[in-house]
Amino acid sequence: MSGIVVQNIQRAEASVIDGLARCGVATVHEAQGRTGLLASHMRPIYAGARIAGSAVTISAPPGDNWMVHVAIEQIKPGDILVLAPNSPCEDGYFGDLLATSALARGCRGLIIDAGVRDVRDLTEMKFPVWSKAVFAQGTVKATLGSVNVPIVCAGAAIQAGDVIVADDDGVCVVPRAQAAAVLEKAKAREAAEGAKRTRLGAGELGLDIYDMRGKLAAMGLKYV
Amino acid sequence: MSGIVVQNIQRAEASVIDGLARCGVATVHEAQGRTGLLASHMRPIYAGARIAGSAVTISAPPGDNWMVHVAIEQIKPGDILVLAPNSPCEDGYFGDLLATSALARGCRGLIIDAGVRDVRDLTEMKFPVWSKAVFAQGTVKATLGSVNVPIVCAGAAIQAGDVIVADDDGVCVVPRAQAAAVLEKAKAREAAEGAKRTRLGAGELGLDIYDMRGKLAAMGLKYV
Amino acid sequence: MSGIVVQNIQRAEASVIDGLARCGVATVHEAQGRTGLLASHMRPIYAGARIAGSAVTISAPPGDNWMVHVAIEQIKPGDILVLAPNSPCEDGYFGDLLATSALARGCRGLIIDAGVRDVRDLTEMKFPVWSKAVFAQGTVKATLGSVNVPIVCAGAAIQAGDVIVADDDGVCVVPRAQAAAVLEKAKAREAAEGAKRTRLGAGELGLDIYDMRGKLAAMGLKYV
Amino acid sequence: MSGIVVQNIQRAEASVIDGLARCGVATVHEAQGRTGLLASHMRPIYAGARIAGSAVTISAPPGDNWMVHVAIEQIKPGDILVLAPNSPCEDGYFGDLLATSALARGCRGLIIDAGVRDVRDLTEMKFPVWSKAVFAQGTVKATLGSVNVPIVCAGAAIQAGDVIVADDDGVCVVPRAQAAAVLEKAKAREAAEGAKRTRLGAGELGLDIYDMRGKLAAMGLKYV
Amino acid sequence: MSGIVVQNIQRAEASVIDGLARCGVATVHEAQGRTGLLASHMRPIYAGARIAGSAVTISAPPGDNWMVHVAIEQIKPGDILVLAPNSPCEDGYFGDLLATSALARGCRGLIIDAGVRDVRDLTEMKFPVWSKAVFAQGTVKATLGSVNVPIVCAGAAIQAGDVIVADDDGVCVVPRAQAAAVLEKAKAREAAEGAKRTRLGAGELGLDIYDMRGKLAAMGLKYV
Amino acid sequence: MSGIVVQNIQRAEASVIDGLARCGVATVHEAQGRTGLLASHMRPIYAGARIAGSAVTISAPPGDNWMVHVAIEQIKPGDILVLAPNSPCEDGYFGDLLATSALARGCRGLIIDAGVRDVRDLTEMKFPVWSKAVFAQGTVKATLGSVNVPIVCAGAAIQAGDVIVADDDGVCVVPRAQAAAVLEKAKAREAAEGAKRTRLGAGELGLDIYDMRGKLAAMGLKYV
Repeated sequence: MSGIVVQNIQRAEASVIDGLARCGVATVHEAQGRTGLLASHMRPIYAGARIAGSAVTISAPPGDNWMVHVAIEQIKPGDILVLAPNSPCEDGYFGDLLATSALARGCRGLIIDAGVRDVRDLTEMKFPVWSKAVFAQGTVKATLGSVNVPIVCAGAAIQAGDVIVADDDGVCVVPRAQAAAVLEKAKAREAAEGAKRTRLGAGELGLDIYDMRGKLAAMGLKYV
Repeated sequence: MSGIVVQNIQRAEASVIDGLARCGVATVHEAQGRTGLLASHMRPIYAGARIAGSAVTISAPPGDNWMVHVAIEQIKPGDILVLAPNSPCEDGYFGDLLATSALARGCRGLIIDAGVRDVRDLTEMKFPVWSKAVFAQGTVKATLGSVNVPIVCAGAAIQAGDVIVADDDGVCVVPRAQAAAVLEKAKAREAAEGAKRTRLGAGELGLDIYDMRGKLAAMGLKYV
Repeated sequence: MSGIVVQNIQRAEASVIDGLARCGVATVHEAQGRTGLLASHMRPIYAGARIAGSAVTISAPPGDNWMVHVAIEQIKPGDILVLAPNSPCEDGYFGDLLATSALARGCRGLIIDAGVRDVRDLTEMKFPVWSKAVFAQGTVKATLGSVNVPIVCAGAAIQAGDVIVADDDGVCVVPRAQAAAVLEKAKAREAAEGAKRTRLGAGELGLDIYDMRGKLAAMGLKYV
Repeated sequence: MSGIVVQNIQRAEASVIDGLARCGVATVHEAQGRTGLLASHMRPIYAGARIAGSAVTISAPPGDNWMVHVAIEQIKPGDILVLAPNSPCEDGYFGDLLATSALARGCRGLIIDAGVRDVRDLTEMKFPVWSKAVFAQGTVKATLGSVNVPIVCAGAAIQAGDVIVADDDGVCVVPRAQAAAVLEKAKAREAAEGAKRTRLGAGELGLDIYDMRGKLAAMGLKYV
Repeated sequence: MSGIVVQNIQRAEASVIDGLARCGVATVHEAQGRTGLLASHMRPIYAGARIAGSAVTISAPPGDNWMVHVAIEQIKPGDILVLAPNSPCEDGYFGDLLATSALARGCRGLIIDAGVRDVRDLTEMKFPVWSKAVFAQGTVKATLGSVNVPIVCAGAAIQAGDVIVADDDGVCVVPRAQAAAVLEKAKAREAAEGAKRTRLGAGELGLDIYDMRGKLAAMGLKYV
Repeated sequence: MSGIVVQNIQRAEASVIDGLARCGVATVHEAQGRTGLLASHMRPIYAGARIAGSAVTISAPPGDNWMVHVAIEQIKPGDILVLAPNSPCEDGYFGDLLATSALARGCRGLIIDAGVRDVRDLTEMKFPVWSKAVFAQGTVKATLGSVNVPIVCAGAAIQAGDVIVADDDGVCVVPRAQAAAVLEKAKAREAAEGAKRTRLGAGELGLDIYDMRGKLAAMGLKYV
């Protein structure tokens, strides 16, 4: 099953990808029916990054980062590396040298359900990473994995070329074929939220804006 | 048991609440006999916030944030929302729209033994949250919970109107009826610490200041 | 086994210690054959600190910080306190008063496989701590532990006088007797990395720099 | 707050307690409106035990089992010891000697949000324990806690004299004053379940028995 | 995305499924290239069960077991229910009544990345369950999920009709289309292991049987 | 640091080892001053095993069980394999084939801070294992580790030849040089416990047997 590199993956349109980045994780997640989130243990190494890009997926053995080198060759500008270990691992697969290499290829960031190191350097380089751990543990280059095959990363099924959206709230995956439609819904949601925000900010209650009082009473809510 | 909203809760005096905020979590915790802390997994979404307020409690089903809307109506200026899910959950019950609404009512922050989202916006709005997780997972509005009933949040028993103190060290609850007495003890403790800090900073040892050497020797401590 | 304070520990040379601090955790860990890391749950209370120093070790009962006072007397300028509880614990053994005292003795920081409190104050004082938890829970002074005995802290065996290196990547221990040799290897590694960084930054691939293509093909890697 | 032993606690009627034991945790939990469960990490040391009894509560410092000795004197036949450490701890507060002593007083078992040891002996003695951990770590007798004060154990608020129900599903607490009413509801629930079990066992579907098809269709469920 | 029930799923041949059950999880996992395992937190409620069957998948909201009723109608004899909550949850979605219903439809067991209750009854009924938790927490029937859609359960991507193999080692999924081929490889592996077991049992070393000494020496292994 | 096999390790006397097995983990742990326990996550794969033996230590890369084969050659009858991965891992390093081989060499069991598989077979073979996980995940044979070097396993520092004691309470290590002395203390403790057990079983209280009432009163314990 391992030992495969898929070379020519399809990607969503750049304008769609960038639009999704602007919407952010929470909005995109809602827009696609509350799906696509990676687990909450995927945390950014620094606050404030907000990116989207096409997934270059990596399936890697525990404690072995050989496939990261293989994957970097597959990066096109605007891509995001997404690494899932074959079994739970928090070793530091990735550090400042690999980030330098990935950046040189136009990579926008890394999503890794394992560890990352050199986080001070990565922060200075503005190379954002969402990871399960910060851990300096070194890795070997001894066993094959695969690149651009379907993976499950932090509980989410991801195909190469899917759109990854990541910000301070975490990480969300949008299937490539649905990216444009999801963007439309996300924008619609944002527009709708603007009006609500104004009303809520003026002190109006959600109970009234969303007309919840009747339903709550019908369910039996009692004020005492 | 669910489906109840208690409307007129009693609160501690504003000056007492604000005094507790100035003392901070560690001091208040010590002042009330080392009680009242919420579990250490309750972390702030940004560093530097330091608040106290009266608890408006929310008991909510997992993945259902309907009761947050109900609770917001019960907020008086200076209150803090405190949400405990009925069973372990890390969904994102709360985001920027609810924060906008809560802020409009005078809410000082949120304590939630579950997830929060839109943390970048909340940080910009200076709406502090202490939570178990940052997670964008959306929630439904389908099942009743209760507002202002006694809850257990992150291991601490909390009644509506109790004083919540929260800062970078975590979260502490002070029973309403004891708030004034705890504040007195906390201030006394702070005063006592000032003198100790000066002596310790000058290089004097705790072993001497607290007169520990004799007791340590009596217990059998051996220097080799 | 408890109740012992070892007073005159040996330390590595100051220049070696400072050299290791400049290299940082990831490089030092690699230089000594990928050993010495403390577990990834040991996180800094603020970003950006980068220290090295000689370990003054503390073996402490759960929830009892008496031995910290004993240990502070043993600190020489440039030392780092390293505390391991006898059994898993996340209580707040250490806060601003103890930090004031430790700083007065020349202490560079604290490594604690338990909790720490007053983190806002510690951050302002620039007293760095790597801990398992931030937790205000108070501790007692009732039971003996030991100071400067061998401990296991967060999965790493540490002797008093070993060199501790800590930065945003975590914490690494270097056996005292090997510190100078490890520093040499770390410097060599840094030098070698500089050249690689330049080539990778120019877009050259690791696959080529490290001559991996042949070995990957021999292992059976397939491009499709 | 610590250092108190409440001596004369009220207990529910023996027949009510024994009736709740027969109903079991899941049924009792449902009967009281889905409340009262302790966290799922509370697991039995052996399968098959099914008990109920009046809670003798213990609030104990981490790693200090002195109060267990104090609590055993307070046991009346049919009681259950319930221990919550002041802060997270998994030390082995309790083993075969304490079990021998507790059994001699008529104790029915132990609920402990910490560790237990000698589990082979306890199993042979048929002394059931629900605990967070099995861990041999010894404890000291140095610091006071309290007995029969209100505690939060594994996420549940428990008063001395409340009824504890425990079986292979975990642990549930029933407030003493509600015990008789909860037993009535639990019995009613059991009776209702018998009929349902027969119909379900005969192949009838819950969709039909509970008349769910219309509501599901109204909610938009689509069969494809 | 939710609210869909796929009715006519394809299944692997019964003889293939039963053959995979006999091989067991570890062998099947190896035979398909070390893929398909669910996370190690999926533990059986009792020891000794060893089953295989076709997956009837359930995507369910947290704390809401309505879709289990919907799924039971879709069961054919020999199937296994596989439930993944939309977000992390350990509530008790399933107990003895649902097991009675599932058994009446020919269901062989349940795989659930959440909680289960009535485990004493399920054990007596010989209805095996692999779950993340044993927890009596009740669930509601208020929100739609889906049945027989692709899910990620405990880190593994599962399609309806895939073959689930489960035993004391955990749970493995075999894609339906590969089931027959995997069975062949699993049988071949078993045959090969028989001979090795005999030699190893006679005291021959793996170092010699697998001819490892030369490669180890070449890698630099040193005997001292 | 890796790639070393220490061949001729020293072992404690067989009679001492067997005596420690009879005393069990809790007693041995107490007898050596409450030291030596491995973390509580090390659980037996079946109940009832109670062993002691000399440690043959294995330091292994994550997901790589090559060194287990190397270690088996070093086993003498009565030894116990003790494996610590270089970084956190729960892969199944060990199954029925390796157990067959180890048993043929006289091995008494396995202590592994990682995963084990084929647990049904191991149970039938009566080959006891204490592990962090049961997990079928296969491992590779690609990278060197070491055998019979000092390791830290589940938080305990272990040297080759140290005595491992393991039973239902967990695992404890006794330094080889102290084994005989620890056995004497353990026997003395057992003898003393016998008398206490009789008195406690007769209803006498620990408060009286250990003469605690005065000290408790002096500390301020209040009966209300």
